[in-house]
Amino acid sequence: MEKSNAKLSLIVHGGAGDIPEAERPLHRAGLERALEAGWRVLEIGGAALDAVETAVRLLEDDAAFDAGVGSVLRLDGSIAMDASIMEGSARRAGAVAGVRRVRHPISLARAVLERTRHVFMIGEGAERLAGEAGLELVDPDFFVTERERRRLERILESRAATAGGGERERATPTGTVGAVARDAHGHVAAATSTGGAPGSLPGRVGDSPIIGAGTFADDRCGGVSCTGTGEHIIRTTLARELVRRMELGTPAHDAAAWAMEHLRVETGGTGGVICLDAGGGAGSAFSTAWMGSLSRCSKTPPAGGRSVKTG
Amino acid sequence: MEKSNAKLSLIVHGGAGDIPEAERPLHRAGLERALEAGWRVLEIGGAALDAVETAVRLLEDDAAFDAGVGSVLRLDGSIAMDASIMEGSARRAGAVAGVRRVRHPISLARAVLERTRHVFMIGEGAERLAGEAGLELVDPDFFVTERERRRLERILESRAATAGGGERERATPTGTVGAVARDAHGHVAAATSTGGAPGSLPGRVGDSPIIGAGTFADDRCGGVSCTGTGEHIIRTTLARELVRRMELGTPAHDAAAWAMEHLRVETGGTGGVICLDAGGGAGSAFSTAWMGSLSRCSKTPPAGGRSVKTG
Repeated sequence: MEKSNAKLSLIVHGGAGDIPEAERPLHRAGLERALEAGWRVLEIGGAALDAVETAVRLLEDDAAFDAGVGSVLRLDGSIAMDASIMEGSARRAGAVAGVRRVRHPISLARAVLERTRHVFMIGEGAERLAGEAGLELVDPDFFVTERERRRLERILESRAATAGGGERERATPTGTVGAVARDAHGHVAAATSTGGAPGSLPGRVGDSPIIGAGTFADDRCGGVSCTGTGEHIIRTTLARELVRRMELGTPAHDAAAWAMEHLRVETGGTGGVICLDAGGGAGSAFSTAWMGSLSRCSKTPPAGGRSVKTG
Repeated sequence: MEKSNAKLSLIVHGGAGDIPEAERPLHRAGLERALEAGWRVLEIGGAALDAVETAVRLLEDDAAFDAGVGSVLRLDGSIAMDASIMEGSARRAGAVAGVRRVRHPISLARAVLERTRHVFMIGEGAERLAGEAGLELVDPDFFVTERERRRLERILESRAATAGGGERERATPTGTVGAVARDAHGHVAAATSTGGAPGSLPGRVGDSPIIGAGTFADDRCGGVSCTGTGEHIIRTTLARELVRRMELGTPAHDAAAWAMEHLRVETGGTGGVICLDAGGGAGSAFSTAWMGSLSRCSKTPPAGGRSVKTG
């Protein structure tokens, strides 16, 4: 093969939004751990799909992020998590939405990809598959943190104070997580997992489980994971557009910046993206107050093998 | 305005698949009624969004099609309907999945677009919105037809006969419905509604509610509604790709044919599409045994103002 297939790359993010200064060290530490765990998979010759699943599972377990433990609460106090995963060789994908009892939603998305002929499953049907696939099931309370209980209280107080207004409180994106990897075989995979947007109506689903919006991967062009105001990301099929940019030859980092501008111009939305091009070049950008992301690659590494980029 | 904004266009479809010869006259008659109803909206100066909603509501009420009444049954005998709608001026969208009690899922998708700051809602949360929006709620049995009870029996018998096989029975796409319209102001809208794929696992969602997969609209380029093997359509973001084709100048009819070839080459999938370009030119194509579609436009009409194309 002509292609430089030896180049390993991994990039992870922990969500874009108004993440308070005080919480950022926890984001950085969690991203470090996820990057290291995913990187070990790639280093021993593991698949990109395994690397992104491994990284995202750690981020789901980490209460710093709005995915798995630490998921935000809907207006009725309930939990609902969404995730998607895609591999770029055959462009197979799996996604789930509205699950409440699955400890690692990203692994359920992978089970949809591998164990069914479907791509997207929701609610109780998806949870039934989790049981059949032997995935860990927990009580929804498992995911609820004191931080999110307090956030919901503030949202409900603010809504009560402005009662009668037609416009519902604006969602502030928080800590949706994602990872994109390229393995030694040149395969690209992307994964995204979320606990949703604060103050959403029960039943709301954002971009994270939508192939082409929150997640996309194609070995021929690259892979993407998005975060931000999901409604805007869905309407712009943002992950698909960013991958196309890279397909047309735009370097990953410029393509990421383009995506943020595209999101703003088309919808007024804000968010963040991480991406890898087909050769493993990494890019990230955000248009919110902050986004934590970390990347690592095995060749032509900027600054000693690791690039750290946070707001 | 330079643009020929007077041109009205409407195109409707009733699903692509192995629709038996005996059922095709009912498909044609139902499409005629939907086309006429949507056309009346456009003729009196109504919005494209109203026209596609009107047309799809009639198709949902028509038991000939796999949407609303006549929806297929999941393997557990349950009903679950999905729909999406998008308007091309501000690229706003609404979508729902996994609803069982809403008589017109397309109107619930529109309620998501107009009454919430969300794009996509699922399950009970979506049904709660239906109640708040004053939409008609019915018992799930309302949607179940004898034809679909028999189909599920055949599927279960065939599964029992091949028990132990790893691969689940292949879904045959049937009668998902859709409409695309262009109104007197040059605005484009697209809508898609489905009762799902026969023999699906409970919780499975296809392309119909996915913006960019089953439905897409942009006044600057055109609008699309897809039907077929939803998993393949999701993985190729087919509606978005078809709209892009038209944006690049490919006439609607050629773009539709391109989409079917793209679906086949990328995933091996089959299906059908209808589309309108920004000027109101109509196109349709299918790669299954049959798809019923009907279109009408107010200017440069082929064959007396109406083009009828069925397999």
